[in-house]
Amino acid sequence: MKKIPVIMDVDTGIDDAVAILVAMAAPQLDIKGITVVAGNQTLEKTLHNTLSVVEYFGRSDIPVAAGSSRPLVKELQADPATHGESGLGTARLPQPTVKPHSMDAVSFLRETLEKSEEKITLVPVGPLTNIALLISCYPHIKEKIDRIVMMGGGAFEGNMNAVCEFNLFTDPEAAQIVFDSGIEIVMCGLDITMKSYTTMEDILRIKATGTKAGDFCAEAFALYYDRYVNNSRLPGCAVHDAVAVTYLLHPEWIKTERANVKVDIDGTETYGQTVCDFRKGRDKSMDNALVCLDIDREKFIGLLEETCKYYK
Amino acid sequence: MKKIPVIMDVDTGIDDAVAILVAMAAPQLDIKGITVVAGNQTLEKTLHNTLSVVEYFGRSDIPVAAGSSRPLVKELQADPATHGESGLGTARLPQPTVKPHSMDAVSFLRETLEKSEEKITLVPVGPLTNIALLISCYPHIKEKIDRIVMMGGGAFEGNMNAVCEFNLFTDPEAAQIVFDSGIEIVMCGLDITMKSYTTMEDILRIKATGTKAGDFCAEAFALYYDRYVNNSRLPGCAVHDAVAVTYLLHPEWIKTERANVKVDIDGTETYGQTVCDFRKGRDKSMDNALVCLDIDREKFIGLLEETCKYYK
Amino acid sequence: MKKIPVIMDVDTGIDDAVAILVAMAAPQLDIKGITVVAGNQTLEKTLHNTLSVVEYFGRSDIPVAAGSSRPLVKELQADPATHGESGLGTARLPQPTVKPHSMDAVSFLRETLEKSEEKITLVPVGPLTNIALLISCYPHIKEKIDRIVMMGGGAFEGNMNAVCEFNLFTDPEAAQIVFDSGIEIVMCGLDITMKSYTTMEDILRIKATGTKAGDFCAEAFALYYDRYVNNSRLPGCAVHDAVAVTYLLHPEWIKTERANVKVDIDGTETYGQTVCDFRKGRDKSMDNALVCLDIDREKFIGLLEETCKYYK
Amino acid sequence: MKKIPVIMDVDTGIDDAVAILVAMAAPQLDIKGITVVAGNQTLEKTLHNTLSVVEYFGRSDIPVAAGSSRPLVKELQADPATHGESGLGTARLPQPTVKPHSMDAVSFLRETLEKSEEKITLVPVGPLTNIALLISCYPHIKEKIDRIVMMGGGAFEGNMNAVCEFNLFTDPEAAQIVFDSGIEIVMCGLDITMKSYTTMEDILRIKATGTKAGDFCAEAFALYYDRYVNNSRLPGCAVHDAVAVTYLLHPEWIKTERANVKVDIDGTETYGQTVCDFRKGRDKSMDNALVCLDIDREKFIGLLEETCKYYK
Repeated sequence: MKKIPVIMDVDTGIDDAVAILVAMAAPQLDIKGITVVAGNQTLEKTLHNTLSVVEYFGRSDIPVAAGSSRPLVKELQADPATHGESGLGTARLPQPTVKPHSMDAVSFLRETLEKSEEKITLVPVGPLTNIALLISCYPHIKEKIDRIVMMGGGAFEGNMNAVCEFNLFTDPEAAQIVFDSGIEIVMCGLDITMKSYTTMEDILRIKATGTKAGDFCAEAFALYYDRYVNNSRLPGCAVHDAVAVTYLLHPEWIKTERANVKVDIDGTETYGQTVCDFRKGRDKSMDNALVCLDIDREKFIGLLEETCKYYK
Repeated sequence: MKKIPVIMDVDTGIDDAVAILVAMAAPQLDIKGITVVAGNQTLEKTLHNTLSVVEYFGRSDIPVAAGSSRPLVKELQADPATHGESGLGTARLPQPTVKPHSMDAVSFLRETLEKSEEKITLVPVGPLTNIALLISCYPHIKEKIDRIVMMGGGAFEGNMNAVCEFNLFTDPEAAQIVFDSGIEIVMCGLDITMKSYTTMEDILRIKATGTKAGDFCAEAFALYYDRYVNNSRLPGCAVHDAVAVTYLLHPEWIKTERANVKVDIDGTETYGQTVCDFRKGRDKSMDNALVCLDIDREKFIGLLEETCKYYK
Repeated sequence: MKKIPVIMDVDTGIDDAVAILVAMAAPQLDIKGITVVAGNQTLEKTLHNTLSVVEYFGRSDIPVAAGSSRPLVKELQADPATHGESGLGTARLPQPTVKPHSMDAVSFLRETLEKSEEKITLVPVGPLTNIALLISCYPHIKEKIDRIVMMGGGAFEGNMNAVCEFNLFTDPEAAQIVFDSGIEIVMCGLDITMKSYTTMEDILRIKATGTKAGDFCAEAFALYYDRYVNNSRLPGCAVHDAVAVTYLLHPEWIKTERANVKVDIDGTETYGQTVCDFRKGRDKSMDNALVCLDIDREKFIGLLEETCKYYK
Repeated sequence: MKKIPVIMDVDTGIDDAVAILVAMAAPQLDIKGITVVAGNQTLEKTLHNTLSVVEYFGRSDIPVAAGSSRPLVKELQADPATHGESGLGTARLPQPTVKPHSMDAVSFLRETLEKSEEKITLVPVGPLTNIALLISCYPHIKEKIDRIVMMGGGAFEGNMNAVCEFNLFTDPEAAQIVFDSGIEIVMCGLDITMKSYTTMEDILRIKATGTKAGDFCAEAFALYYDRYVNNSRLPGCAVHDAVAVTYLLHPEWIKTERANVKVDIDGTETYGQTVCDFRKGRDKSMDNALVCLDIDREKFIGLLEETCKYYK
């Protein structure tokens, strides 16, 4: 089987960690590297967490490159209330010994893409700062990007306010640059990720795998689960970032619809909203994204369980 | 049965005309007057159409008062493509002989509300210009308004662009004033009105009533139906404005959800969007609206048919 | 001499009080009435102050009508730091016995303009809420307005922030409606009013008139003067609102330039800015205002002194 | 004499070409390189023009690196009406044989700054795209930037509209990033550059130097002069970009004032405005710029003449 070459871009974060685990366990993917951005926590912490996850779960061979420590225009507002002070909730991983790549994220992305003979899929699951800088500095590189399968935004749902999702809200201008770039986008926004939740029963199943990954996930989910159950309408916690990876592995589990997606960057109530136009009469030549709307949740949970079993 | 006292505010318009017909036929309503605003067509035309409808269908006793000829801040952009040059599609009614009320809409609303011993429900189904001017000029009048049952906006749908509905898009600042007024609002937006469509079969049923109202509706719907079927995902034409009246008569047919609704008045992509916050964790003390989300369409069509039969 | 018929619109306020004094003392003006708006202080206080000034200085014959208690869209933010808790600094006037006019400001303006055989000049020196409501509710009345000689805005200066003046900042949407109305505007903004300051020496001259007006002004200016000297680059306190009246009496003292003036109503840094286009290559057919830029300050101070002497 | 190390960033452009000539002739400056951006014309043309100027005037030793071909968020709108189809008006230079540097502008800036033992002054005279990308990708590099002496913006004047200048209007988000970066900025905006004009008499003096530079300038100014005289209030053409270089050479000729400068990035009328706060009472700890307000024009013209004489 031909593997799909991917570079992940993460702000690790609980659900980023799970997304990395799913990706590293997937035989369908060839992970060329992971770039890191500030978002759920400061760059220092998201970089530390990414290195910890990669090393603890046996993949120190994957290059990890540090990227932007702040959004393009806005100030960074991290989210310790959801992801904890460390960014990984109550989970504790050993101090990483592996070092970040010598190149910064933008340079690493540029070089890896330039040198690659085949197109590479980018999988950003945090604010789109690194990706926006890459395509702004090196627009020719767009030809080497197969598509962008991302977590962020939402057609019909928000979590920072009524209509904006955290990653988009954190760096709206970067998102605007990416959605306006002409690169084909698969958008896994809140529409699908809020349907990709794990109940307490699911968490117990994951824990019951008895693997180091099962233990890690169960620990990481502890406070995260409480936060969702208390503050959202969900009966469990949303594992947002893992959905983008899942789309790559099993698009057949996911319902999508093509749309023209614009990012609002100046509304008082809507700054960072992904304005998704699905109207029949729209100018379809402007469509730039496949918007994910629903998922077979049982199969998604099954994938998380299988992923944990992989890390014996 | 105690009748509900109402004042309608219209920009007649095909679906406004139907809304007026439903209201005039309803034994549950006591129509204290109708105020008119520019929107679907110029004020001159919407006033003419309103007088025509009221007179032709035998209710010249209802006072009709002319209101604002343009939105507060934006320029008027009427919609002849949907409602035709006259505003009533291809339907032709006799020239009205009845004159508009001597008072302008705002003065009429003020006086009627001030003199009323009971609270009155306002039913605006066009741009909210008149209502915004009323409550800006005479804030004390808010105590006499029972609630505002309106057509406009949309939580998850737009028709002028991806997220904005015609009435809100036409006068966003007026809508902002109304949604910010503290008056309880029932919002019949595109979420419900796009589910309140009439198919060709429905139109034939209406026509088959053989009444002057059935004939009028069938004629008025002719081009309007084509436009919807060609440009929207609907299998028929949406009778938006009649839904607000239907809510008053049969709230039990309609599914609603409380929300905090704000109007965006400065986003490039979102100017005029009704930003509806349904999130569980929101500050519910800020809730200002009951947002209508679904309707028993068969019963709605049945009401239209019964309405037509009323005008023998 | 033919008198100029005017209606003032005030949010009294220290400098509003002085403006009223100047106008009432001027043989060139026929004051048809004064309408009141919230701004420097709440409507309750600005109405009270206006009635006090009119009565104490012997002109209870002038009708005073209460208008809007808040801006169209924004919340009211009064300015007690500049004008004191009462709105008149440390000056104390007797409790007024005269009552406000039975009509609200908009109705009073409408009726007075409709009944007038000649055109009337409006002289608003507060937020433009009343004027915007008047022309929104009754656009036909524009034909009866000779022009609007107003205090507010600034081409090159701000006081609320770098580019916005208090009256414009308080109700930007109302200002947009007025500047967009097609009515000829004379704009006395900060460009001229910051050149219309009174030094301590000037205040002593005014006080030395020994009249009740001299005493009142000296008391009213006490804290106001300190605030300006401490917080602005001026060697005295700006008597903003009196400049608009001065323009009517002595346009020959004032340097003006025609411009196209737009009000920004959506910039984060510029919400409420009067964007004045003086460029040679602009479309001059869009010019809507005469912008006042400089004044013969000595003559202005002389006018204040003469005004005080009038109220023996 | 210790030379000031500088890197210029240009969108050559008539006045950019003159700025390069002044800088190359100045014994006070050590030009480490020139980076190029799209603005007055497309990147292809501005790069071509920069290489032509550098080579034709004998400084092929200066590295010229190609940067961004478009603004961060907006589309590029070049200005052929002012600078001609080539970007250099009617002047014609030989086809350059020298090649651009192998590195892109951001990489060149990064490497040059990183390797430099002393801090370097950046002199951007076009849209700030390259500089914004540099400091977004490599924030640590800010320590190596002595200050940014730029052409762009304006406190009291605009040329694209009433309040916005071309470079700022072309890439407002980039400008926001630069003004918000914490780097000390000297802003040569329209306030000073519109006072730095060359009359026909001046152009004839320059032409009369009889040098290749004098000939080039006279040719380049031909249409440019007409455009200014016909469309602006100036009696000559503004040589905007040369003023930033002049500030470096002769700050004693220039009147400045410290300010807090913010860039508006969301106002309809003000998108791209440099909002300059000079108010006495402002929070001076937020000051980020020295705003240039006036210049000794005669000395400036003298510098242009001396510059031309340098290129015998």
